[in-house]
Amino acid sequence: MQMSKLFTKTSKTAPHDADTANAKYLIQGSFVHQEMAGVYSWLPLGLRVLNKVVNIIREEMDAIGGQEILMSALQPKENWITTGRWDSVDILFKLHSQTDKDYALGCSHEELVTPLVGSFIKSYKDLPCAVYQVQTKFRDELRAKSGVLRGREFGMKDMYSFHATQEDLERYYQKVLQAYIKVFQRCGLDVKVTEASGGIFTKNVSHEFQVVTPAGEDNILACPNCTYAQNSEVSTLKEGDKCPDCGGVLAAVKGVEVGNIFDLGTKYSDAFKVEFTAEDGSRQTALMGCYGIGTTRLVGTIVEALHDERGIMWPKLVAPFAIHLVSLNSKDEAVQAKIMDTAATLYEDMLHEGLEVIWDDREASPGEKLADADLLGMPLRILISEKSLKENSVEWKQRAEKDAKLVNLQDVMEEAQGFVEE
Amino acid sequence: MQMSKLFTKTSKTAPHDADTANAKYLIQGSFVHQEMAGVYSWLPLGLRVLNKVVNIIREEMDAIGGQEILMSALQPKENWITTGRWDSVDILFKLHSQTDKDYALGCSHEELVTPLVGSFIKSYKDLPCAVYQVQTKFRDELRAKSGVLRGREFGMKDMYSFHATQEDLERYYQKVLQAYIKVFQRCGLDVKVTEASGGIFTKNVSHEFQVVTPAGEDNILACPNCTYAQNSEVSTLKEGDKCPDCGGVLAAVKGVEVGNIFDLGTKYSDAFKVEFTAEDGSRQTALMGCYGIGTTRLVGTIVEALHDERGIMWPKLVAPFAIHLVSLNSKDEAVQAKIMDTAATLYEDMLHEGLEVIWDDREASPGEKLADADLLGMPLRILISEKSLKENSVEWKQRAEKDAKLVNLQDVMEEAQGFVEE
Repeated sequence: MQMSKLFTKTSKTAPHDADTANAKYLIQGSFVHQEMAGVYSWLPLGLRVLNKVVNIIREEMDAIGGQEILMSALQPKENWITTGRWDSVDILFKLHSQTDKDYALGCSHEELVTPLVGSFIKSYKDLPCAVYQVQTKFRDELRAKSGVLRGREFGMKDMYSFHATQEDLERYYQKVLQAYIKVFQRCGLDVKVTEASGGIFTKNVSHEFQVVTPAGEDNILACPNCTYAQNSEVSTLKEGDKCPDCGGVLAAVKGVEVGNIFDLGTKYSDAFKVEFTAEDGSRQTALMGCYGIGTTRLVGTIVEALHDERGIMWPKLVAPFAIHLVSLNSKDEAVQAKIMDTAATLYEDMLHEGLEVIWDDREASPGEKLADADLLGMPLRILISEKSLKENSVEWKQRAEKDAKLVNLQDVMEEAQGFVEE
Repeated sequence: MQMSKLFTKTSKTAPHDADTANAKYLIQGSFVHQEMAGVYSWLPLGLRVLNKVVNIIREEMDAIGGQEILMSALQPKENWITTGRWDSVDILFKLHSQTDKDYALGCSHEELVTPLVGSFIKSYKDLPCAVYQVQTKFRDELRAKSGVLRGREFGMKDMYSFHATQEDLERYYQKVLQAYIKVFQRCGLDVKVTEASGGIFTKNVSHEFQVVTPAGEDNILACPNCTYAQNSEVSTLKEGDKCPDCGGVLAAVKGVEVGNIFDLGTKYSDAFKVEFTAEDGSRQTALMGCYGIGTTRLVGTIVEALHDERGIMWPKLVAPFAIHLVSLNSKDEAVQAKIMDTAATLYEDMLHEGLEVIWDDREASPGEKLADADLLGMPLRILISEKSLKENSVEWKQRAEKDAKLVNLQDVMEEAQGFVEE
């Protein structure tokens, strides 16, 4: 992608009401566009990140046998009456149609998925099964805040599993838990798993996935060496205690919740009568688990965890582009021609080799280009200038590292391929 | 994909209220699940088709410089007041929030895209630009009908272009027109282009894309040799006349509208004051075009155009799987083992070579398996049975052809690869 052709532009200043790093940098870099409080449109660079995050999630859900579907956002009121949630879920958006029908606008999909999957379940042989979707959710929040972390409209991957026995549900639940850890680690995040504080009134298990970052709202006691953590409020341990899993020394840190998983028991399958004939011939109710990851929130969390005072530092696997190629303009026409020529050749070579590269080919000042490269946060910046060309080289700098180095022009392609693949 | 693991099942009977082939076969084959009138969830096989259709559209929009974004479904009331459409669009779903705000639920996105793109347009150098999205739309229809052809919630690709001059808009408009023809042809459809009947009160041009099928609602006069057509109602020509483009003999046929493109002029850019500094220094208002394809409707139209009395006949590029591998069960244990063994080996070989194959490995009767293969409509059926194995062969049958043939087991892989790639 040539930046001169990108229709978005960065903005020199952060939005005045940005309350978090993700709100600040995602808007300033035009990754997203705020339509109103808690509602964002995703622009080309942001959509690329979102798609990469979603594809990582897809791969991990497919790997554990999840079957992808896409349920509707409009949901019949009757289904929400059946579960008793029409009146009890206060953030539920409700619509009234010209034909005098009431619809819910999905904030969650248990009310659809349970009867849907249930209609295919006759016998224990149809179990287990797991379905997931990547779909937009709507929440009538009293207060939207923190950029894309808590919106009125947001992306979510929600998976639902159905089982014949508690043992089978628990086995699958553990599989999802491990798959979730992989998702967050592939997104470049330090993730901890806390058992949620259901307390004695909830017999069913649930876990939260917390990304460690000073910007987090939740206080957790986490092991630095493994994924073990507890919510500080309910923790039976204290700072300095040993991690029960690996013996590491627990530390008090802040976390952002990026996912959660629940053993739903028969709460929804009872409501919709999802019954099956068991191996012994008896009629039984299916057990359900549900598993959520906020996809747009995950993008915001990556920014919270990985930024500095100049902008974002995207991890390689989710960066809009791996490489930010910058040609610094010269006032000397012959030099300028050589800079643009060298950059164009390198750009074409990279495209040809399948490297994801954005080329800042704009008529902008060096200061503007360098500031934008830092703000936009691609992992590797390759700079071509009069100075570098005198050394027959490019300036090579990783966003997350302090120092730059010169790389000889004839070695750049090989080193760039190595960087992307490592 | 092994059919024994697919959580959906086909149904022996069509839904009693199915009013069209797409409603009948998409539901019977569990490509979609009807949640309520005009609202469908997409199940694994259907979602595969939808994704393929969407990716064809993406490729063609990218090829003409479209930049993909994703705008929100929730839209501020103020934007609809600005264009005067808050009260005039009767199918607009409206929401009232807990925080006492009114939102529109997007049936179209001019009200968002115009100020969004407009915020980046300062000078003629920022033009032209074209953005598109694949997003869910909502319409408060008085009457939903015809399966996925006219729903209350549906998928759409909408593109919007911005230009400095009418000449530039018209040039781009023609590019989109050609790209649209490619999209529909790649989807296996016979598409005609009609100039819409704006009449004397509309000075701006628009075109409709009509797929020729007896199930169509629109009467058109179409050339069998090229894409020329006219709406019969406004046509200045009659059946038997010569096509003005190629000289073919015009015929009266039925069509389903699958796309449309509009020259919007300055209707929306005036409302949102999208102005730019022209090359001569004057301030001018940007010109806009908009271009829509109903993605879910397109899937339904493919079914309308390509089915017989037994089920769907998916074109190769959008079929859920290219190959339907069927192992017919035998009661003889040794024979059954050989059938399953042969099928499993072929299945693994196909996966390994990247061929898209669904294997009906269920414990179902031959009649059930063959009926399902016809209903689900993959382009190529490869059948392994006691009978075929006696000839050391598989039975090879294309869905759209009448006759089957035997193909020797050792040639199957090569022929299958040839079939997929041709």
